[in-house]
Amino acid sequence: MRPLEILDTTLRDGAQAEGISFSLEDKLRIARRLDGLGIRFIEGGWPGSNPKDAEFFARARRLRQAKIVAFGSTRRANIDADDDANLAAILDAGTEVVTLVGKAWELHVEQVLGTTLAENLRMIADSVRHLRDAGRRVIYDAEHFFDGFNANPGYALETLRAALAEGAECLVLCDTNGGNVPSRVAQVVSQVRAAFPEVPLGIHAHNDSGVAVANTLVAVEAGATHVQGTINGYGERCGNADLCSVIPNLQIKMGQTVLSPAQLAQLGETARFVSEVANLRPDAHAPFVGRSAFAHKGGIHVDAVMKAAESYQHIDPALVGNERRVLVSELSGKGNILQKAAELCPELETATERAREILREVKEMEARGYQFEGAEGSFELLLRRAQPDYEPPFELFDFLVLVEKRQGIGIVAEATVKARVGDQIMHTAAVGNGPVNALDSAIRKAILPFYPELDRVQLVDYKVRILDEQAATAAQTRVLIEASDGERAWSTVGSSTNIIEASFYALVDSLELPLARANGNGNGVRAAVTSPPLQARPRQTSAASD
Amino acid sequence: MRPLEILDTTLRDGAQAEGISFSLEDKLRIARRLDGLGIRFIEGGWPGSNPKDAEFFARARRLRQAKIVAFGSTRRANIDADDDANLAAILDAGTEVVTLVGKAWELHVEQVLGTTLAENLRMIADSVRHLRDAGRRVIYDAEHFFDGFNANPGYALETLRAALAEGAECLVLCDTNGGNVPSRVAQVVSQVRAAFPEVPLGIHAHNDSGVAVANTLVAVEAGATHVQGTINGYGERCGNADLCSVIPNLQIKMGQTVLSPAQLAQLGETARFVSEVANLRPDAHAPFVGRSAFAHKGGIHVDAVMKAAESYQHIDPALVGNERRVLVSELSGKGNILQKAAELCPELETATERAREILREVKEMEARGYQFEGAEGSFELLLRRAQPDYEPPFELFDFLVLVEKRQGIGIVAEATVKARVGDQIMHTAAVGNGPVNALDSAIRKAILPFYPELDRVQLVDYKVRILDEQAATAAQTRVLIEASDGERAWSTVGSSTNIIEASFYALVDSLELPLARANGNGNGVRAAVTSPPLQARPRQTSAASD
Repeated sequence: MRPLEILDTTLRDGAQAEGISFSLEDKLRIARRLDGLGIRFIEGGWPGSNPKDAEFFARARRLRQAKIVAFGSTRRANIDADDDANLAAILDAGTEVVTLVGKAWELHVEQVLGTTLAENLRMIADSVRHLRDAGRRVIYDAEHFFDGFNANPGYALETLRAALAEGAECLVLCDTNGGNVPSRVAQVVSQVRAAFPEVPLGIHAHNDSGVAVANTLVAVEAGATHVQGTINGYGERCGNADLCSVIPNLQIKMGQTVLSPAQLAQLGETARFVSEVANLRPDAHAPFVGRSAFAHKGGIHVDAVMKAAESYQHIDPALVGNERRVLVSELSGKGNILQKAAELCPELETATERAREILREVKEMEARGYQFEGAEGSFELLLRRAQPDYEPPFELFDFLVLVEKRQGIGIVAEATVKARVGDQIMHTAAVGNGPVNALDSAIRKAILPFYPELDRVQLVDYKVRILDEQAATAAQTRVLIEASDGERAWSTVGSSTNIIEASFYALVDSLELPLARANGNGNGVRAAVTSPPLQARPRQTSAASD
Repeated sequence: MRPLEILDTTLRDGAQAEGISFSLEDKLRIARRLDGLGIRFIEGGWPGSNPKDAEFFARARRLRQAKIVAFGSTRRANIDADDDANLAAILDAGTEVVTLVGKAWELHVEQVLGTTLAENLRMIADSVRHLRDAGRRVIYDAEHFFDGFNANPGYALETLRAALAEGAECLVLCDTNGGNVPSRVAQVVSQVRAAFPEVPLGIHAHNDSGVAVANTLVAVEAGATHVQGTINGYGERCGNADLCSVIPNLQIKMGQTVLSPAQLAQLGETARFVSEVANLRPDAHAPFVGRSAFAHKGGIHVDAVMKAAESYQHIDPALVGNERRVLVSELSGKGNILQKAAELCPELETATERAREILREVKEMEARGYQFEGAEGSFELLLRRAQPDYEPPFELFDFLVLVEKRQGIGIVAEATVKARVGDQIMHTAAVGNGPVNALDSAIRKAILPFYPELDRVQLVDYKVRILDEQAATAAQTRVLIEASDGERAWSTVGSSTNIIEASFYALVDSLELPLARANGNGNGVRAAVTSPPLQARPRQTSAASD
C-alpha cells in the first residue's frame, strides 16, 4: 500500500469561500501551522491570478517539512506554452512541486473555453512538458473529472493520459461541482485505477451534495493515495472536503497512517487557529474538532458515558485534541457539578457540602431562566463566588437606561451607572447605538479606571433568547455574552423578564470573571487581593490591582 | 422497489442539539410546516421524558397528511410491560404509529443497563407486543446497531428478530454514535438485508464522522427504504443526517421519489423557517439550501455559469427552492415579488412598475437587516402600504422607554407613547415587566380606544436575533413577533441597532396588519375607511371603525 499524502488547499481553494479574505501575513501563519501539523503539500495560491499569492511564494520558502505548491491552469488555447503568462507565473513561484489544472469535461472545453477537444489535449500535454522541462514535479488536477467521465468516459481518460505521458506524477480526480454521490465516485475511481494500474491517483472533492468527506474516503478505498482538502472544509459554495474530518477518519477508522499521534492531537487546535485567522466563528458542531462534538446533554447519556466512555462517544476525543464536555443543564445532578467544577477550576474547594449548596443555587437560578450550557464563564464565577474568601472586584448597584424617539430627531439611547470599587463610588453616564451598548459603555467608564487591563476585554458575541415565547414581550429573557481578551474567550449569561436587566447581569459577569481569575480570587485560598487605588484616575493610573 | 418513507426527528433528536430549546408553539409550527412539505412521519418527542412533549401530542392531531409519531424506549429490566411508565406515556400520546428504541449492543446492555443479554431480548419483545396489543404500528429503532453488529453480529441480529417476531413493521438500523464510515454501513445493511429479505429496513445516522448524509445514501442503495433525519441536520454533538441534503440527493441524484417537485421546491424555505424558529443562524454553506450553495465568487466561474449553467452548478437551484447568486438579477427579483404578492394577497394591485418599486424597498430594507422570510405579515403590510389608496389606521411618532434599577427598590420599566389616530392625538404611559412589554402596553393604551377589536390580538411569540454577532452589543438586531387573534396568526419584523426600536416597528406592524385587512385598506380599491370617532373613549366606546 502506498502511503497516503495530503495536499491542503485552504490557502487557494479555501480562500474562495464567501467571507474569507486572507492577508499575506495570515497565509504565512497558516502555512507554518500546517507545516507543524505534518501536512505534506501546502497549496499556497494561484500566482498567475493574484499578486498577493506571488509575494507569498517569495516569503514561504522556509518551512520545516511541508512542500509549498504553486497552482495554475494549462496554457490558453492556440498559443505557445513559452508565451503563456500563467505558466510563467507558476515557474516564477519557484516551488519544487506545482499543481496544474486542466479540463476533463467536453462541456467545459467546448462551451466555456470555446476550443476543440483535440486542442485541449495539446494544452494539457504542452503545459505539463513545459513545467517538467523546467524541472518541476507536476501534480495534475483533472477539473470536473467525474462530470466529464459521466458524459464521455473515453475523453476524460484521454485527458489523464495526455498529462501522464508528459510526466505528471499524480492524477487528481476532481469533483469540482460536488455533484457526485459516493457510490458513483467509488465506481469511477475504480475504473480509472484499472485503466492506470501503476499511477498514483488523487481525489479533490467539493461538498455541494453534503458528501465531500465520504467521497474522499471511498476514493481512498478505491485506490486513491493523494488527498486534497481544506481545514474546516472552507471553500466556495458549500466548501471542500474537510481535512479535519478526512484525516481522523483515514487514520482512526480506516487504519491509514497520515500524521503521527502527536500531530493528530493538534488537529482541534489547528481548526480553531485557522477559523480565528479567517475571522470566522468556529462551527461548534463540526465532527471531531467542534466544541459540541463530544458534548453530552441528556442525563441518560451523561450517566452512560460515566459508566463506559465508548457508550456514546465514537472515539477518545483526546486523539484529535478535543475533550468531552458535560453540559450543565436542568437534568444535571451533583455528580455533573463536581465534574464540571474539577474541569473548570481544579484548584477550587468543592467539598461535598459545598457542591450541594452550589447545586441548590444552580437549580434556583435555572428556575429563573438561567442556563449554564453555553455560559461556562458565569458557572465558573458562581463556583468562585461560593468560596468563603471571595471578594468581588467591583459592585454595580444602580443603573438607569433611557431610549427616546422624537419626531425629527431620531432615536437616542443613554445609560447611567452607579458602582462601588473598593471604597470609591463611581457615577457614570454614556450613550450608545442601543440601550445595552449604552449600558456597556457606562459600566466600563465606571470600572476601567481601576482595572485598565479590562480595556483588552472585548465583547465578541451577544445573543438573546426569549424563553417561554408564548408570553411574548412579557417573557423571561436570557442573554448570552461572549467576551475575549484576545487570547482566551469566556461566555456569560443573565436572565430576567427585563432584557436590559438580563444584559446587565451578563455584562457584569463578563468583566468580573477575568479580574477574579487574575487575582486568584475565589481560588479557595485567601489570595492577595490588592485594594483598588484610593484616587481613581482614568487609564494612565497604572496602580490598579492585579 | 418499495417507495421510500421519511421520518423527521427534528422535534425529538434535533431538539437535543446544544442551543436548541423549542417551545410547544415552536413544535406545532414546525410540525405543520413539515406536514406541508410532504414528510410521512413526524417524530414529535418523547412523552415519557418530557411533559411538554405530552402536551404536544394532545395538540398536534390535526395535520393534513403526515403522521405524528411518539417515541420511547423498551420497558425497564425485570418489570412487567404493564407497569412501565414510559410505555404508558407512549400509549397516552394516542398516536397511530410509535417509534420504540431498544438496545442492540452488548456493551450497552451489560454496562449501561446493567442487565443480561437474554433479558434485553425479552424487554424488546415484551415492549413491541405491548404496543401492538394496544393497536399501535411500531417502528423499531435498533440503537447502536452498527457498533453492536461490529462487536457481536449474531446478538445484534437477534435483537432485530425479537422486535420483528412481535410485529414491528420496520427495523431501523441506528449509527447512534456516528462512528461508522460509508463502506462499513453499506456492508452491514447488505448483511441485514440478506438476513431479513422481506422486512422494511430503515437508517438513522449521526454525523460524528462527517458522513451521516453519505451513510444514509449508501444504506438506501443497500436496501433501506425508511430514512430518518432532521431539518438542517440539527441534533446533539455533530447532528443527525441532514434531510435537506438527503432528500435532494435521493430524489435528484438517485432517482427515488420522495416528494413532489412542488414540495421539493419548498425545501429551502423550510430549512430557513426551522432555523428561524430554532433561533439559530442559518448555515450559509449548507448544501442545496444554504445562501452560498449556488453563489459564485470567482470571475471565471461567473463567466462560465453565464455560458453554461451546469458548468459550475451541480443542479438547478430552483429544484430545491434556492437560487443562484451572481449579480442581483432585477428580473428574477421582480418575479419573486410578484409571485409572493399573488400568494399573500391576490387582490392587490401589483402592476409591473409597482413591483419594481416594492423590490427596491425590499432590497433597501434587507440592507438594514430586515428579512421577510419569517415575517410575511410585515411583507404583506409593505405591499398594502405601497398601494395608492393606503391610509394608515394610526400613526405612532414619539416614544420614550426607561429602565431603572435602584438599590432596595428593584427594577422598573416604563414607556410613554404619542400617537395620532384620525385627528386625535393620544399620549399614554404604561409600566411593564420589561421595556418592550411596557412599550406594548403604552401603544395599546393609545389605540385600543379607537379599535377595541385589537383587544383580541395577543402577541404569542417574540424572538430576538442579533445579526453580525461579532459587533456584540453594537450589532444590528432583528425582532420577530408573532401575533394572533385566536383564529389567524401573523408574524412581523423590525430591525435596528437599538433593540427597543426594532421591537417598536415589529409591534406596530403586528397591530396595523389586522386593521388594514379588516378595512380592506390597501386592497387596491378605495375602501370605506370609517373615520375614527372624534371623542376617543377607552374600551366601552363601541363606535370604533371597522
